[in-house]
Amino acid sequence: MTAPARAELLRALTDPASVAIVGASDNPAKLQARPMDFLRRHGFRGAVHPVNPGRETVAGARAYPLVSAIPEPVDHAYLLVGAEAAESALSDCASAGVKVVSLLADGFAEAGPEGRARQDRLAALAAEAGILLIGPNSTGVVATHSGFSCTTNAAFRLDALRRGRLAVLSQSGSLIGTLLSRGEARGRGFSTLISVGNEAGAGVGQLGSLLLDDPHTDAFLLFLETIRDREALAEFARAAHAQGKPVVAYMIGASEEGQALSVSHTGALTGSSAACAALLRGLGIRQAEQFETLLDAPPALARARLPAARPRQVTVVSTTGGGGAMLIDQMAARGARIAGPGDAARAKLQAQAIPMGHGKLVDVTLAGTNYATMKEVVSTLAADPETGLLLVCIGSSAQFQPDLAVKPIVDAVAEAPEGAAPVIAFPLPEATDALAMLEAGGVPTFRSVEVCAETAAMLLAPCAPAPVPDGPLPPRAAALLDRAPAGVMDELDAGEVFAALGAPRPRQALFDLDLPIVDPGLGWPVVAKLVSADLPHKTEAGAIRVGVPDLPALRTAAAEMRAAARAHAPGARLRGLLAQEMRRGLGEAIVGVSRDPLAGPVVTVGQGGVLTEIYRDAAVRPAPVTVEIAREMLAEVRGFALLRGFRGAPAGDLEALARLVADVSRIALHPRVEEAEINPVLVGTDGVVLLDALVRLG
Amino acid sequence: MTAPARAELLRALTDPASVAIVGASDNPAKLQARPMDFLRRHGFRGAVHPVNPGRETVAGARAYPLVSAIPEPVDHAYLLVGAEAAESALSDCASAGVKVVSLLADGFAEAGPEGRARQDRLAALAAEAGILLIGPNSTGVVATHSGFSCTTNAAFRLDALRRGRLAVLSQSGSLIGTLLSRGEARGRGFSTLISVGNEAGAGVGQLGSLLLDDPHTDAFLLFLETIRDREALAEFARAAHAQGKPVVAYMIGASEEGQALSVSHTGALTGSSAACAALLRGLGIRQAEQFETLLDAPPALARARLPAARPRQVTVVSTTGGGGAMLIDQMAARGARIAGPGDAARAKLQAQAIPMGHGKLVDVTLAGTNYATMKEVVSTLAADPETGLLLVCIGSSAQFQPDLAVKPIVDAVAEAPEGAAPVIAFPLPEATDALAMLEAGGVPTFRSVEVCAETAAMLLAPCAPAPVPDGPLPPRAAALLDRAPAGVMDELDAGEVFAALGAPRPRQALFDLDLPIVDPGLGWPVVAKLVSADLPHKTEAGAIRVGVPDLPALRTAAAEMRAAARAHAPGARLRGLLAQEMRRGLGEAIVGVSRDPLAGPVVTVGQGGVLTEIYRDAAVRPAPVTVEIAREMLAEVRGFALLRGFRGAPAGDLEALARLVADVSRIALHPRVEEAEINPVLVGTDGVVLLDALVRLG
Repeated sequence: MTAPARAELLRALTDPASVAIVGASDNPAKLQARPMDFLRRHGFRGAVHPVNPGRETVAGARAYPLVSAIPEPVDHAYLLVGAEAAESALSDCASAGVKVVSLLADGFAEAGPEGRARQDRLAALAAEAGILLIGPNSTGVVATHSGFSCTTNAAFRLDALRRGRLAVLSQSGSLIGTLLSRGEARGRGFSTLISVGNEAGAGVGQLGSLLLDDPHTDAFLLFLETIRDREALAEFARAAHAQGKPVVAYMIGASEEGQALSVSHTGALTGSSAACAALLRGLGIRQAEQFETLLDAPPALARARLPAARPRQVTVVSTTGGGGAMLIDQMAARGARIAGPGDAARAKLQAQAIPMGHGKLVDVTLAGTNYATMKEVVSTLAADPETGLLLVCIGSSAQFQPDLAVKPIVDAVAEAPEGAAPVIAFPLPEATDALAMLEAGGVPTFRSVEVCAETAAMLLAPCAPAPVPDGPLPPRAAALLDRAPAGVMDELDAGEVFAALGAPRPRQALFDLDLPIVDPGLGWPVVAKLVSADLPHKTEAGAIRVGVPDLPALRTAAAEMRAAARAHAPGARLRGLLAQEMRRGLGEAIVGVSRDPLAGPVVTVGQGGVLTEIYRDAAVRPAPVTVEIAREMLAEVRGFALLRGFRGAPAGDLEALARLVADVSRIALHPRVEEAEINPVLVGTDGVVLLDALVRLG
Repeated sequence: MTAPARAELLRALTDPASVAIVGASDNPAKLQARPMDFLRRHGFRGAVHPVNPGRETVAGARAYPLVSAIPEPVDHAYLLVGAEAAESALSDCASAGVKVVSLLADGFAEAGPEGRARQDRLAALAAEAGILLIGPNSTGVVATHSGFSCTTNAAFRLDALRRGRLAVLSQSGSLIGTLLSRGEARGRGFSTLISVGNEAGAGVGQLGSLLLDDPHTDAFLLFLETIRDREALAEFARAAHAQGKPVVAYMIGASEEGQALSVSHTGALTGSSAACAALLRGLGIRQAEQFETLLDAPPALARARLPAARPRQVTVVSTTGGGGAMLIDQMAARGARIAGPGDAARAKLQAQAIPMGHGKLVDVTLAGTNYATMKEVVSTLAADPETGLLLVCIGSSAQFQPDLAVKPIVDAVAEAPEGAAPVIAFPLPEATDALAMLEAGGVPTFRSVEVCAETAAMLLAPCAPAPVPDGPLPPRAAALLDRAPAGVMDELDAGEVFAALGAPRPRQALFDLDLPIVDPGLGWPVVAKLVSADLPHKTEAGAIRVGVPDLPALRTAAAEMRAAARAHAPGARLRGLLAQEMRRGLGEAIVGVSRDPLAGPVVTVGQGGVLTEIYRDAAVRPAPVTVEIAREMLAEVRGFALLRGFRGAPAGDLEALARLVADVSRIALHPRVEEAEINPVLVGTDGVVLLDALVRLG
């Protein structure tokens, strides 16, 4: 899309010159009366045209039988009609040249195959007509800067719509009301709020990308029940990061019950939450654990950026020991590094006889709860090179005497030089005025201990879209995969593919079972196996021997294994005898690539074995990954402590394992690969080697 | 203490006839002016006597130079003097016959050895005089029913002190202000709030026990940084449970940083958070993860009790799919079992064409957001035998139209028959009026998703003090421990002790190394070891052989091991040669007993080995435990999945392991045992057997 076309579409979405409300009513008890009420209430400056074939006027405005009967161009239409009437209403919009259509009705993909087909027809119609379709199941679109509150959401009944710089994209319409109402209580306004519904046409990604051009928006809040278009989401997330606009998502599905519900209530198909979390993280989208983090983190992330020169750690000042300790405890539990004042800052404060307490927490106590002391402490610590982020916890004075400990924070921040550490604040009591004073002074605030701690951890943790590895699949691997038949590849072919991707294999030799077996030249002992796609479980089939000491033993083993395999699976095709050098390592790993229905191709690495499953100790990322990301993954697997030189034991070659993970993750680039796995990889002190492998092609 | 004496002490604590404020000031800028201000402000009906030797009057009241100079008996004194003057002030209180003294000053145990000594002297003085001493470092005592706001905490500057039925005992004084202020915003009042400070005299347990007699208190909130007197805490917790008064604690120390801070800022010595969590749980004290759970859970636990006949599961009704799904997700993630309507209830609602959605969530949608539907749904589901707890999530209507979906909940609850399921509610928007309406109607409410989910999980999970196992240490075990010297017992002696406690050992025979070795009569092969308290690492010392096939080999092994041990540790005393039958099992476990500095004796069970450490996969309880509790512990260890018949593998005898855990946990009853461990225990399909053991005596 050209830039002018994008600008035009954004205007039609958030600031249309005219809007049609199809199915509008003026019965205040009816949902269909709400959009016209809210548009007037919040001062929408464009034209509003009710469309209702049975009426001359609706709510005092002239009503039209069809959108195409409206005598002026219509930018945006909100369809309040039922599912059956939606198709003809959309056709009518197409013939009227409407640019954006949102659709309230349910009864589509969430309502079974018939609804699914109806939704597909709508989407095709919109695509053909070049209409940006929002919904179905959308409670509408609101943009506060233009007063465009084109929504059926009862939460917009409030008297005045606060403006703000946060955009909301939500798969749940009702949650928009929750965010609006809770945001209002926190003094947080929004720029745009869109209920994306079933995303039959435009989804979170496409709408997000469009809103990146919106000069009223600094940060994005996503409420997700599923991921429907990961390519569009990726494009949006990468562009948002490039523009420095943080994106924070809350996603339902922490539990299996939650996953099941997402299916039942909006037609979403929720995949594994680990794969979705990996996708969001890989895109540089931060995931909120606590619901209110969705409200408090985005403005903090947009305002309290750590200068690059500052360490990624937090210093805490408190007027109350218990409160400061509670915050430090919660931040540390979320992985934040806690710092104390540097020597120079400490000396400077001590010289002024300012109480600081013991340990890392700077506890000024009641004795230091006064304007001069607090301002000095905040100024000194924000300038201290040891400070990355400065969190100020304020006790009871925040409620009744904000001049003592709240105003000095605001003043110190206002006077802070370029490059000072960002300051955030947590008043322990319920202190609405203090929160407002701090926010007005540009100091992000929180009203829950855990949300404060979670946001502080987000501010400290780098979050960027993962780099996409360069280049295509190596040609030899691509050729092997291209010509292989569908189904499971045998060990030898799978091993060839992984070797072509760069995975080290043990030295090996393949013998035709009908020809004499000679010394494979691998040294002795060797491992001997029968190669067969029909014998997936070699041990049970008697088709593997470890530690074969010499050539006569290898010949005997070949004959015995052949007999055992015949007895076990009479029809099994035997491709040959594979002899491999015996390798020893310090431990094993498993590396797999699979395709999640929502999150797409992912690579997983863990220790392998039942304990990995029991402890769910594996790292997941969208595939392919670079070697830097692979290193990050290995650092996450707790069980690899055993390969990191646990208690003086020798360390495994995790660098070689990281290269292996990066190399084999590229197999995801081949569209026919449904799953691929190396299980196990042997990890030695110097290098890794693939011991068994599997590839399944579609 | 006799019942009348307790009643008298409770009166002096919360409703004294007269109070002395020692060090009172009338300079409003000074902390020392606050108690008299707050006592007057909140209508305290007793006499208030300022004590200040330099003044005739303070704040219009006659001042005395000493407490003992006050012409009427004084029940309660609050000492606002510094640490140095505290001892003489306390002596003065003793001579005046004061019953309760609270002390503001810091500079005691938290300030090093000198302060520690000063604190010990104060405590001794109070004990001798029979004074209930609160503090030092106490911001005072408040009882709302009597207006006794004898505190320096600025949070009590509010105009009116709301009454309520929750008692607060806090080791952090400032957190009392936080709870008061946040409670006020939630419409929650308190009965009594005590800042226990350093607990030199009365601590959380003793004060809690005293307040159990308070007719104004239904539930207890504890804010803990440490545990100082676990015996008193246990007595309180057991009595509270017997009276049906829930106790909820928030404890700092989730992270190591938090643990370190507790040390630095109040003189607390924080032990391992796992041991403290085990202690609280073992006492039937619920631990809050989220800070605001401390405010919301206790009233819910006091009011929304599950009738015994109802299943421990929650049914969710929602007017908004997204909100209901979010709550279900969070509750399930905290282990709550989610239920849907029973067949009869579903049929009844369907017959009335009430929308219910798909799946377990009863989503009445906007179409069902009206008084009649909501009342019918809540009444029907509260009566449904499938419902254990009923959670109602209300969308935007809660904010602007509480008559639609909030009032019907209150009315349905008011009309609910005896035995109906308790109802709790979560309004998604910021809806202060709806919260107040629901709370007034006896429906517990929440303002955070996570706090609601955590409290619902608490309501469903049984929580009672663990039964204390009957009887003393078995006499033979006691005798063995009594006569053993301090230090580490050798394997043979430790094994004897555990055998006397009931732990199965392999059959074994001990040979004098200077006499001929004969067939031990254990069958072959056997395990052979040298017994020596000086050879703790037998493998390194060459002092163990596994799979010894016959008598000649045993004789050879004995000679070789002796030579190896001599070479390894020339001075080691060798007690003999131990031959044991070879046993095989399905897996191993480790069982240990140790003493935590705060939580006291605990028993720990896990799989053993490095993975248990890496994954911190062990269950901990105060020792000793009954076999029922031991079973509960085994169910918590994830790694024991391998012994539970994982994927069709044979199951280990976990019942025998539970008996072993219960039996050996009794070793904690012997005061000289500092630590004891069986590592490993071999777990077979039929029984368990101790393979190696250690006991360390003080």
